[in-house]
Amino acid sequence: MATTTAPWKQLLLNSLQANSHLRHSSYFQLATIGPNGMPANRTVVFRGFQDTTNKIQINTDSRTHKIEDLNHWPFAEICWYFTDSWEQFRINGAVDVIDGSNPDSIKLQQREKAWFDSSPKSRLQYLGPNPGLPSLGDQPTQAASSLDPSAGPAAAFCLLLLDPDQVQVPFFSNIYTFIRSFVIVVVFCCSQVDYLNLKSNERITFSKKIANEEISWNSEKVNP
Amino acid sequence: MATTTAPWKQLLLNSLQANSHLRHSSYFQLATIGPNGMPANRTVVFRGFQDTTNKIQINTDSRTHKIEDLNHWPFAEICWYFTDSWEQFRINGAVDVIDGSNPDSIKLQQREKAWFDSSPKSRLQYLGPNPGLPSLGDQPTQAASSLDPSAGPAAAFCLLLLDPDQVQVPFFSNIYTFIRSFVIVVVFCCSQVDYLNLKSNERITFSKKIANEEISWNSEKVNP
Repeated sequence: MATTTAPWKQLLLNSLQANSHLRHSSYFQLATIGPNGMPANRTVVFRGFQDTTNKIQINTDSRTHKIEDLNHWPFAEICWYFTDSWEQFRINGAVDVIDGSNPDSIKLQQREKAWFDSSPKSRLQYLGPNPGLPSLGDQPTQAASSLDPSAGPAAAFCLLLLDPDQVQVPFFSNIYTFIRSFVIVVVFCCSQVDYLNLKSNERITFSKKIANEEISWNSEKVNP
Repeated sequence: MATTTAPWKQLLLNSLQANSHLRHSSYFQLATIGPNGMPANRTVVFRGFQDTTNKIQINTDSRTHKIEDLNHWPFAEICWYFTDSWEQFRINGAVDVIDGSNPDSIKLQQREKAWFDSSPKSRLQYLGPNPGLPSLGDQPTQAASSLDPSAGPAAAFCLLLLDPDQVQVPFFSNIYTFIRSFVIVVVFCCSQVDYLNLKSNERITFSKKIANEEISWNSEKVNP
């Protein structure tokens, strides 16, 4: 399916530029749904758009709960608040989980690229103990020098690609998610990006439109 | 059921104090699940704890989608990131939606208190046009002077109470949520607050324990 640069993407790039002096401007909150049916929410780091697409890249550890969440229900909503410009972006989409076992060689290359694009320090965390498990006290942390800078992705390294353009119906393995598959049909028409500017008190919703195999985005000014 | 001050609450109060010079330190992201089964995520403002309880107060407009979400599935997860101290709190719980139609007079009093605790400027927004609906251009905005400071809550004003101590099984009106009721049982044992400090690289999970009708919280140091 053909895709064009979304109008909200330029707005987001402008906000990133305007807030680039703040380290935390590249952090946002990612909401998923756990296998227990509960909402989950955590801060993650924006790792850029994939090439020229609208796909948002996130690096994560495959041993974290969010992977379990996304394997059960591969949809997420980003809430990205820029503290200096008072702007909020809400972006929902399907999430592709790309770990070392992915059968697609192109996706494995994307994962490898994401690995080498990240700093040696951030790569080190994937060699550490299992996140969320009880801490065994002062474990010897692997020194940065012990990481071969030319070594490929650690087993636990996982690339997430949130695609606001696409909502893929996943394979449903149990009755719970099977029933959700019927509910989800509604969402195909509602996928959108919501932009709110608290300084200008302006809000715009960008709604995805698919016609003739081509994706386009309509924008509408709505009440904040 | 008896409740005690949770140990994570003191940690959170300390963080609020340490970050109080930043206006956005009272903002956090609230994740819910929409009636379409999709995760939703938005920034809201912390309005304090309710009295001496562990309940977190949020004011909102009853015309926003989050009310529809919570009426279908009254659970949420807060992700609260403090940009200066590099601390994250993830807090999940049941959410009580208290609007003007609530039959409980004590809850209506809580709603009224929340209304008068908010500034005249923030009260005004509840008299504005329906959030999320198409903007009809330059509508005359209601002047602050037109709001009677002694007038009670506007019809659209709604108090949310997120209670990390409690997970109430709601009344299930359709098969989708009915099935979720079975899944949810697991969650009763897993309700927790997750604290992460990126400066000290320390992570603590606080797990709720119920024994003899009394709630207590266990803390455990886990791998970040």
